[in-house]
Amino acid sequence: MAARKKTRKKAARKSTRRAPQSTSERKASLQAQDVQRRNDQMNGVTVDMICSAANGVYKDIQKRSKPDLHFPVRSLKNVSYSRQKGYFEIGKQKKTRTLTVNTVRSFAQTLRMMGLSKELVETNDFATKRDAYYQSKNWEEAHFDEQNESDAVMDDIEALFSVKNISREQLRFVPDEHGGAVAGRLIVLDPDRDTGVVERIDCTRFGSGAYSIPSNVEHLSFETNAKFILVIETGGVFQRLQSHKFWQTASCILISMAGVPTRATRRFIRKLSDGCKLPVYAFVDCDPYGISNIYRTLKVGSGNAAHLSQFFCVPQARFLGVTPQDIIDYELPTHPLLDVDIKRAKDALKNDPFFKAHKPWQKALEQLLGMGVRAEQQALAKWGLNYVIEEYLPRKLRQVDAFLP
Amino acid sequence: MAARKKTRKKAARKSTRRAPQSTSERKASLQAQDVQRRNDQMNGVTVDMICSAANGVYKDIQKRSKPDLHFPVRSLKNVSYSRQKGYFEIGKQKKTRTLTVNTVRSFAQTLRMMGLSKELVETNDFATKRDAYYQSKNWEEAHFDEQNESDAVMDDIEALFSVKNISREQLRFVPDEHGGAVAGRLIVLDPDRDTGVVERIDCTRFGSGAYSIPSNVEHLSFETNAKFILVIETGGVFQRLQSHKFWQTASCILISMAGVPTRATRRFIRKLSDGCKLPVYAFVDCDPYGISNIYRTLKVGSGNAAHLSQFFCVPQARFLGVTPQDIIDYELPTHPLLDVDIKRAKDALKNDPFFKAHKPWQKALEQLLGMGVRAEQQALAKWGLNYVIEEYLPRKLRQVDAFLP
Repeated sequence: MAARKKTRKKAARKSTRRAPQSTSERKASLQAQDVQRRNDQMNGVTVDMICSAANGVYKDIQKRSKPDLHFPVRSLKNVSYSRQKGYFEIGKQKKTRTLTVNTVRSFAQTLRMMGLSKELVETNDFATKRDAYYQSKNWEEAHFDEQNESDAVMDDIEALFSVKNISREQLRFVPDEHGGAVAGRLIVLDPDRDTGVVERIDCTRFGSGAYSIPSNVEHLSFETNAKFILVIETGGVFQRLQSHKFWQTASCILISMAGVPTRATRRFIRKLSDGCKLPVYAFVDCDPYGISNIYRTLKVGSGNAAHLSQFFCVPQARFLGVTPQDIIDYELPTHPLLDVDIKRAKDALKNDPFFKAHKPWQKALEQLLGMGVRAEQQALAKWGLNYVIEEYLPRKLRQVDAFLP
Repeated sequence: MAARKKTRKKAARKSTRRAPQSTSERKASLQAQDVQRRNDQMNGVTVDMICSAANGVYKDIQKRSKPDLHFPVRSLKNVSYSRQKGYFEIGKQKKTRTLTVNTVRSFAQTLRMMGLSKELVETNDFATKRDAYYQSKNWEEAHFDEQNESDAVMDDIEALFSVKNISREQLRFVPDEHGGAVAGRLIVLDPDRDTGVVERIDCTRFGSGAYSIPSNVEHLSFETNAKFILVIETGGVFQRLQSHKFWQTASCILISMAGVPTRATRRFIRKLSDGCKLPVYAFVDCDPYGISNIYRTLKVGSGNAAHLSQFFCVPQARFLGVTPQDIIDYELPTHPLLDVDIKRAKDALKNDPFFKAHKPWQKALEQLLGMGVRAEQQALAKWGLNYVIEEYLPRKLRQVDAFLP
């Protein structure tokens, strides 16, 4: 660890010696250093928190009293939503795990998992859920038999530390999922994990390809002159907008979610939007899945992972389309709503704190239910493959105030 | 179209006027121009083929005889495999669609779909299956009611032209799926679709992120000093190797498949391996799915899409691991084989022309069935998160001749 720190310092000295090429690069380098400094700080806080939780247990044992750990309850019933905060927030209900003869194994596993997290922070490394499960195979009596056991312990630890404002990524637990694809007016600044030298990744320079978001984005910072971020449900529409350089004409950044956005993708959008003060517009299918799963998860988070919302949701996101009204205005080809669609929409209206808080959304969902149909974003191709670029998006973007919340 | 050609020519002139910066860049630029030239040629051939098929129909009608079209049968029964060719090849069985009162609609749809393809080639554009479906909504009587109808017609057209060595991508039909992620010693050369100016995308310069493969890769060419391509099943392992710059120490290119590789990913690997004469090593889970679905599809193609194998499979791929023998040698944690795993392995041994042609694979599958267990590639994390980088891969790569075929 000491050796690695040294390398980083040396590289930093080396990189400062090399004269920066422009004001914007100098600014970017300072910005990246700032992110680095804040991350180093957060790493210290994370390790302190883990030690303090472990010390509490240790002291209880020394006092010969039964140690316990308090985890927030992770369920929709322990979630609140306020338009002001803008995301699902985990409530105050706690479950307690006390060390007894019956719980000794899971108690030990929880502590070992916290120990793994501390080690990961200190070695500047990371682990996926699956990595952690297999690591445990060397923990002797404390090993996990099934991955769902280790997943649950990891989720508990995440929830435990989330109430102290420490995210899963700060604990160095990263998702196994692929990240979204990015193209457009954006430079990503990514400091090397060993040397600290900052890589400048220009997302206008990927030709017909794109930048693939890494699992962990905490160390990234950004430079952009874009006016907004357009997040897109399907790879097909993303590829069309990217190949035709829509980001150039519209001055924007394109991000493909490929379905429900992964955590890394959501965190990336959030950090980018927060850091660069950019509005986020969502372009998804007009169906209850696109609206209540993809868009709702992007904007406010999901019920069973509310302890993550504060880090991962994008409360500033707004809904560009496809709206139920678009189906009428653009005479789109439709499919009938399936039973599962109808159930999902009715559930959203009845039980989802987000839709209950937003009248325009209630109207839109009721309109969709009334019409009994759904439409995909690619339905615009009825009017020509590039109608979406030449007509639909420009027209929509002239009226951003009319976007659904 | 004429206007676009002019722009491209102008840009090409402009770009040649600018003095290339190095020999390798000059070489790369020539290479990209070569790809461009070959693609332009192929576009001509494609349009000619479409016109000749349509003309055949037209002449039959003029002669007052019933026109018909002959499509290769797409099924495992019409597939052959030879170790020499190295991929599943579609056989000679044909089905005939004759224009009658009953088939008039699907016959018209087939011709319109061929017309769409011609238009796409001529405007240098592309369409996904879904795009094509929605485009048809403006074809009046010839529109499709359901997407599976238009998908089937597209598949037929692909098969029809594949026997003339024209791939789906040359017909400008592209997949809707996301592409794999790439990192390492590779520069991708991607000429702009309007100006022809070549973008040089350096895959060593993406920090912890990666290059995301576009849906269509026909126009790409490559520059590399890597020794091999390592294709990886899971995003988690890819991220670990990428973050720790395994590509640097091992002089290679890393490609994440994220499960069964998409067509764009397979085509990318194939073009890269062919063009740069690089061996391809596959690193996947040791289970019947990893072996007979992911690896087999990568290497020789799949049964119901054999008309694509000649373009999409990677016959030069070899299996690095995880092998059944690795489970023993590395004392890996395992899971019991499920019924579906056992069925899949037995099917492969009994019916799959690929496994039937390779003795070492029969032995390996039988060994796996005998052990009754499977192991994931991340199981190596039992020995430490970076054991895979520091021990497993280096040790394996010292014995590439021992890789399964």
